Amino acid sequence: MKDENLLLSIAILGGTGKEGKGLAYRWARAGYHVLIGSRDAEKAKTAADDVRGMLGEGVSVNGLGNLEAAKEANIVVLTVPYSAHRSTLEAVKDELQGKILVDVTVPLVPPKVSTVQMPAAGSAAQEAKEIVGDGVEVCAAFQNISHEHLLGDSDVECDVLVTGTSKAAREEVIKLTEAAGLTGWDAGPIQNSVVVEGLTSVLIGINKKYGSTHAGIKITGVSR
Amino acid sequence: MKDENLLLSIAILGGTGKEGKGLAYRWARAGYHVLIGSRDAEKAKTAADDVRGMLGEGVSVNGLGNLEAAKEANIVVLTVPYSAHRSTLEAVKDELQGKILVDVTVPLVPPKVSTVQMPAAGSAAQEAKEIVGDGVEVCAAFQNISHEHLLGDSDVECDVLVTGTSKAAREEVIKLTEAAGLTGWDAGPIQNSVVVEGLTSVLIGINKKYGSTHAGIKITGVSR
Repeated sequence: MKDENLLLSIAILGGTGKEGKGLAYRWARAGYHVLIGSRDAEKAKTAADDVRGMLGEGVSVNGLGNLEAAKEANIVVLTVPYSAHRSTLEAVKDELQGKILVDVTVPLVPPKVSTVQMPAAGSAAQEAKEIVGDGVEVCAAFQNISHEHLLGDSDVECDVLVTGTSKAAREEVIKLTEAAGLTGWDAGPIQNSVVVEGLTSVLIGINKKYGSTHAGIKITGVSR
Repeated sequence: MKDENLLLSIAILGGTGKEGKGLAYRWARAGYHVLIGSRDAEKAKTAADDVRGMLGEGVSVNGLGNLEAAKEANIVVLTVPYSAHRSTLEAVKDELQGKILVDVTVPLVPPKVSTVQMPAAGSAAQEAKEIVGDGVEVCAAFQNISHEHLLGDSDVECDVLVTGTSKAAREEVIKLTEAAGLTGWDAGPIQNSVVVEGLTSVLIGINKKYGSTHAGIKITGVSR
């Protein structure tokens, strides 16, 4: 646990969902201040209690409304379903200025969730950038990780591809992947988000076709 | 070597390039009739001689002009640079009707080759489908494999994601990946090609950033 983590607060908006709660668990375990956000602050508090219950005393996890969570955090992670993507961002965008937004959203279009269907902006992350404006660094990450993997201490056999509006912001998010016990890779500019978001549809299709439940990817051929 | 392979001819248009020559080597080794195609038939014959020289007698590799190669083959693989994608397809499209086209093209836009920049159709494979029409099943595959890996007998530490206009066509192409000594996955409909083509830009960026030369991907979490 690094001391600098103790200064950094991470808000997870929509953090009562499985993906968000898994990330809250991993980052709280690593020593970050975690703020679980929800439209319903009571639900957020319950989720925070759950995570504290799993990790014991000495971790910092609290539940708040989305707006308050975004306001108090240095880094804001968005784990809402795509249907709530725009409305959540519009509600909190003033609180995001000068911060890093990490978009975990996959723009799935039911019922064809294994077919890539991107919004007009090119990807959910680029759409987020359009909504929040130039004062926010927008990264996208964690779209391909099964939530079953996160809420526990097992190794996750899936890498994280991190795209984003600046190299410095991507580096910050890669640190967060490592703190969560995952391997993160700099996957380039925000325009590349279509690959990572779309890969989720490919992996859903592979799960369906091959009878698996948590297909993932690993980068090969690179020694670090 | 299966007997049925002996009935199947594969044309590789633009097959004098490194990627195409590597695929020719792998498929000839597996017992397929391979037709290397080029705008310059003499160059195609030289490339075919090279591959025969590496594999010895008893393999079937011949060089032809692109049009003749497409005409004689059951399956046509396109490995030209993106700048020659449309013109090559327009020249051979009559010969493709009723066949499977396997598009290996990545629509890179120099100088920013590590930034995903897709054509208006959504991907090179979808553009190919627009050009060749409904009489052709279009698949896309092999975009992420480094050519260094193919022209030789070493294991390739990179999987092949196969997209395409029908499940049956994707199954045929997955057989071709296996014949080449690679692991192929059904990555869904042709709309998903943006993920696999775009992944090449992500991998180029990873090579640049992490000092590697042949970053690839493996699907994890699925037992077959």
